[in-house]
Amino acid sequence: MRSSQYLLSTLKETPSDAEIVSHQLMLRAGMIRKVAAGLYTWTPSGLRVLRKVEKVVREEMEAINALEILMPMVQPADLWQESGRWDDYGPELLRLKDRNQRDFLLGPTHEEIISELVRKEISSYKQLPLTLFQIQTKFRDEIRPRFGVMRAREFLMKDAYSFHLSQESLQQAYDQMYQAYCRIFERLGLDYRPVIADTGSIGGHSSHEFHVLASSGEDAIAFSDGSDYAANVEMAEALPPTGERAKASMEMQRHEVKGDDLAALLQPLSVETQQAVKCYIAEASDDIDAEYVLLVVRADHELNTIKAEKHPAVASPLVLVDSHKAHGIHPAFLGPVNFDGAVLVDHSAAHLADFACGSSENGVWLTGVNWDRDASITATVDIRNVVEGDPSPCGNGQLKIARGIEVGHIFQLGKKYSDAMKVGVLSETGKHETLTMGCYGIGVSRIVAAAIEQHHDERGIKWPNNLAPFQVVLIPMNMHKSARVQETAEKLYQSLLDAGVDVLFDDRKERPGVMFTDMELIGIPHQVVIGERNLDDGMVEYQARKDGNKIKLSIDDVVSHLQQQLA
Amino acid sequence: MRSSQYLLSTLKETPSDAEIVSHQLMLRAGMIRKVAAGLYTWTPSGLRVLRKVEKVVREEMEAINALEILMPMVQPADLWQESGRWDDYGPELLRLKDRNQRDFLLGPTHEEIISELVRKEISSYKQLPLTLFQIQTKFRDEIRPRFGVMRAREFLMKDAYSFHLSQESLQQAYDQMYQAYCRIFERLGLDYRPVIADTGSIGGHSSHEFHVLASSGEDAIAFSDGSDYAANVEMAEALPPTGERAKASMEMQRHEVKGDDLAALLQPLSVETQQAVKCYIAEASDDIDAEYVLLVVRADHELNTIKAEKHPAVASPLVLVDSHKAHGIHPAFLGPVNFDGAVLVDHSAAHLADFACGSSENGVWLTGVNWDRDASITATVDIRNVVEGDPSPCGNGQLKIARGIEVGHIFQLGKKYSDAMKVGVLSETGKHETLTMGCYGIGVSRIVAAAIEQHHDERGIKWPNNLAPFQVVLIPMNMHKSARVQETAEKLYQSLLDAGVDVLFDDRKERPGVMFTDMELIGIPHQVVIGERNLDDGMVEYQARKDGNKIKLSIDDVVSHLQQQLA
Repeated sequence: MRSSQYLLSTLKETPSDAEIVSHQLMLRAGMIRKVAAGLYTWTPSGLRVLRKVEKVVREEMEAINALEILMPMVQPADLWQESGRWDDYGPELLRLKDRNQRDFLLGPTHEEIISELVRKEISSYKQLPLTLFQIQTKFRDEIRPRFGVMRAREFLMKDAYSFHLSQESLQQAYDQMYQAYCRIFERLGLDYRPVIADTGSIGGHSSHEFHVLASSGEDAIAFSDGSDYAANVEMAEALPPTGERAKASMEMQRHEVKGDDLAALLQPLSVETQQAVKCYIAEASDDIDAEYVLLVVRADHELNTIKAEKHPAVASPLVLVDSHKAHGIHPAFLGPVNFDGAVLVDHSAAHLADFACGSSENGVWLTGVNWDRDASITATVDIRNVVEGDPSPCGNGQLKIARGIEVGHIFQLGKKYSDAMKVGVLSETGKHETLTMGCYGIGVSRIVAAAIEQHHDERGIKWPNNLAPFQVVLIPMNMHKSARVQETAEKLYQSLLDAGVDVLFDDRKERPGVMFTDMELIGIPHQVVIGERNLDDGMVEYQARKDGNKIKLSIDDVVSHLQQQLA
Repeated sequence: MRSSQYLLSTLKETPSDAEIVSHQLMLRAGMIRKVAAGLYTWTPSGLRVLRKVEKVVREEMEAINALEILMPMVQPADLWQESGRWDDYGPELLRLKDRNQRDFLLGPTHEEIISELVRKEISSYKQLPLTLFQIQTKFRDEIRPRFGVMRAREFLMKDAYSFHLSQESLQQAYDQMYQAYCRIFERLGLDYRPVIADTGSIGGHSSHEFHVLASSGEDAIAFSDGSDYAANVEMAEALPPTGERAKASMEMQRHEVKGDDLAALLQPLSVETQQAVKCYIAEASDDIDAEYVLLVVRADHELNTIKAEKHPAVASPLVLVDSHKAHGIHPAFLGPVNFDGAVLVDHSAAHLADFACGSSENGVWLTGVNWDRDASITATVDIRNVVEGDPSPCGNGQLKIARGIEVGHIFQLGKKYSDAMKVGVLSETGKHETLTMGCYGIGVSRIVAAAIEQHHDERGIKWPNNLAPFQVVLIPMNMHKSARVQETAEKLYQSLLDAGVDVLFDDRKERPGVMFTDMELIGIPHQVVIGERNLDDGMVEYQARKDGNKIKLSIDDVVSHLQQQLA
């Protein structure tokens, strides 16, 4: 491609409404343009990247025998009424009426449509297992669309669905999909982690999210420095401390304290936060004979409400009680001593001896408190978020915490949809069997933004080879003034095209500085600069965007050098 | 691809709600499944064909330097209010509101979005001319969606838009696009005609439709048997008859006739329809000093209202007057003698002497009427549809009439949108100039149906090579009973894959008859049958779907023979 016949559309200024780096750079590098809130046009450079993501995703789906189909974006309401999602979904589901006042919606996902297809199309166990996928435009009416294509309303997604007669078959497809996702993100040159994700009400360890690591990520991920283990911080198990709890050595003492800031009120008591506990009151479930449950974690830890909610003693969904309103006690002074109800204590808090805690009396804290002697424990449980330095639950290494951008999610749906929509086949024994399902998503357009969050510097984007809008750019210096530069550039351009290299030839009548700035902003990984001075020696200059390293190359070696860089 | 890992989804029965052959065959061959009226899922075989069309279209667009972009399907109303189309469009435009009650629509085309992009992105004449295209899902809320993907509500379209400073530049891009369209339809193996199309209110010969010829086509096309000339029947010029009009030889006579059917009332008079004229009354334009205009065509011809409307004496839009209501005269008895108003006579009718016509008195016809002597002509004009056998307006050959399916449309828009939306640049002389635009559509999903209308027989689809879901199918006969058949089939399959041939290996445990029936229905162009009997001689059987011809091939020659067929 020649720049003179292309639409570069680079911007010098950072648009004021772009908050994150990827959004800023996608606008500045001429990849997207806003049409309305959360709606974007992909301009030529952006679309080239999007298509490259799409291609890798498609190839890896085909490699695991997933079959591509294309479902409509506009979906009839009746199928969603059948699954129950028509009522479950809030206003993020864009509902609409056609000219006959029939209800439709713009699809955010396609579980209903695929279930309808499979229940009509598949009648025998012989046709199973089956995995179908599509790469298709989705719509989600976000309450606050932002960050460009990172959280757009209209976006491109790969969604796959698998159908099985048994959990073993589903697990096999799930594992294959997991591996395919790993290959996709590897081929795209991204630093990513598959992390164990929450499965919500369905339960089981049957969901993974795939995160691209980037400091701007919205999710916190805990991963081991000694293994492949990774999980959402909220999902990662906090192991109990090893060894015996220390023996009680102090007497319990009352202290009148000032204010209600934990750190501030502990200071005069000479107690560190890791030697104190903090408490929350939650509504109890019907399973136990008490109205309330006290949740106790170490004062330097964070309560994990997802873990707490899963405990049978706790009402689900979790309801934290405002103790000030309900009992007149400020939350900072809640404590386990003489608490009337079940007391669930996090492992780390339960391991403390001679600790400090609230007294259930406003303005008073206790020190030298000891479990069993001064306060009882109903159960010792894991109800905190892990922190950096915790031992990894896999048994190897310590946990690190990183930020991630979710770009993929695989999920064992089980029979949620196939029960509701009666998706089944005749089994080998002639019995009707309801199918079990998996669903597998990749945010194709979001990957583009996530890749930029991970690969950029102050001058622009630094594309991995397989994502770049062009892999190579030819920059002739002052070509319109030098016939020799022009001739060499044209010849090199032709040789690169002949060799199948994805090359941009910057043949604009621009100053070299403008060209360098543009190409670094756009982030083309490999740059070949043709200038008078080097031509005297039969040389051109090669520069890698990745590290900025420059080398001189003989003109004859350019093609083979680039092929090596791209291999 | 192996059938056993694929979703063939063929049907034996023709679904009762499919009216036309392509719809029936797309359902039976497992290409599409209905989700709701006018909404379809493309199943694997259908999507494979759709993607092949897409690929050829994309390659030919890139070959003329059109740049691909991707605009959103959901469009904000404000841009359509600016262009005026928000009010102009009827209910076929699906309007919707987002969660904030803002107005949006599902795009049937993208003139507004692209105009918005270009007016913001292009500021200098140096960036012109520019042609942008996309291949994207469109929505049109058809009042009666039918014929499967031929007239669906959600469909895939290639839409391109070009921007220019001058009419010459637009004409150049238009001509390039015309050639690219020809290459696309040729590569797809379709018998097509580019036809001169009506440009509506914009005028000029600046629009062509591309029609795939098929007897089920909704449009009638006139084309020359002696040249490339083709036009919509409504657009084709009817040349005036050559030679002088014959002299009057009869006296005008009154005849009382029965009924009001033209053919029936002419019979007792012994007058052929081509020796009689029929008349219509239209409202006159303000340009002339009369209330009505009489439109006169030969009784065997059809009035062409599009042509009539373009005459300055006729009010635009054309209003045909109900003469029975307005003047108490049944339309069958209207005539030109003593007509009070302008009389526009079609060339063929004006060429008649001693003709028959109505008398403007109910129940009475006249014979032996002659122009000038008995009735005056205000103007001789072309206001009829052409008929088979008319001389071609290009001067070479005679016109034939065929049915066509419109699959492409190119159009010189001029400044319709760029005036309304202020799309302009600074010219070379520093002046602000409004751009002139072209738009160019191809119905990607419709091509799939149109190709089937043109290429099928009673057994199924007969795909052209470049459209087929698979180009070759390997059919092993009773493979599960013969190790030799299986081995040969597996080897051939691998050789074909290695040679890059797009092959389906029908490895199902089915009777040969079932396999043949399925593969002929699906329409795979090249069939290789591996059976015990032929293997004795080291041979397999090759059959072309196109003509059913069978030949024996040595196993070693299969790959090269197929490559030859596909070249």
